[in-house]
Amino acid sequence: MHPKKSFGVECPVARTLECIGEWWSILILRDAFQGFTRFDDFQKSLGIAPNILSRRLLHLTETGLFERRLYSKRPPRHEYVLTAKGRDLFPMVMAILAWGNKHMAPQGETVLLAERETGRHLTPVMVDAERMVSLTHASVMLVAGPRATAKTHERLARIQSLRASAPQIEG
Amino acid sequence: MHPKKSFGVECPVARTLECIGEWWSILILRDAFQGFTRFDDFQKSLGIAPNILSRRLLHLTETGLFERRLYSKRPPRHEYVLTAKGRDLFPMVMAILAWGNKHMAPQGETVLLAERETGRHLTPVMVDAERMVSLTHASVMLVAGPRATAKTHERLARIQSLRASAPQIEG
Repeated sequence: MHPKKSFGVECPVARTLECIGEWWSILILRDAFQGFTRFDDFQKSLGIAPNILSRRLLHLTETGLFERRLYSKRPPRHEYVLTAKGRDLFPMVMAILAWGNKHMAPQGETVLLAERETGRHLTPVMVDAERMVSLTHASVMLVAGPRATAKTHERLARIQSLRASAPQIEG
Repeated sequence: MHPKKSFGVECPVARTLECIGEWWSILILRDAFQGFTRFDDFQKSLGIAPNILSRRLLHLTETGLFERRLYSKRPPRHEYVLTAKGRDLFPMVMAILAWGNKHMAPQGETVLLAERETGRHLTPVMVDAERMVSLTHASVMLVAGPRATAKTHERLARIQSLRASAPQIEG
């Protein structure tokens, strides 16, 4: 049910979504970022059917987001540990969480982000690494990268002309 | 096929995913951030079946990420403009794009982020708004918010004990 066809090759967003697989995977990542590694813990947390969880963990291991490790020989039991590649999805999960807290918790937040060392509450914002300036929809554009094909160049040119005349809702 | 059951009520990540709906929606958002507003433009860009696109846009309008506007009376034609709520998902889409560029473009990037005003290339990082310190999996924890239920408190306590003994893959 998720899109594979047209832009898997060119678009880094589509490529990432394909690698992640589907919604469940984001919740598995969420739990992994909190320290979950074992099948039973994921299963209990997610309330997911075991066969679906198995399939998801297999996919996430195949795509290199998790490493599967034997932690018990008898009986054989594996745990799923985030790789560096998997850990790099932390900003995405934080962005999703922050948005949920802002827009989907009208009566107040159930969980907040805090600095591990001090307990200080955190508000994640996306900035440019070099100048630490906040990045917004209005200030950022897409440009062709070194591997852009003619099709991507054409698409980006079309986007620039669209942007010039795009309506905005303020608020 | 996406999860709804257990944590929709409590978890801001799950709430956000439910609001977004599914994978297609993220690609629709991606295009909207580039200035797309019209059904035909989305359809052409996504290569998606019209009935699926209709359903997605209806969902995204109902959940308040887009506003539907009449831009032509004869024939009646609507466009879909991001609301402030929708625009706030920009960091999530940037995080997905940046990850894709880092991990899914071994031969070089096809698109890059750049400052609209200057064309300077951008590297998005997630920092704490107050101190501008980079936020990582290792430095951030979840804590109970003002609306946390007993169940959430219990879950967070369990997570803290898991974290203490969690294995790490360095790399």
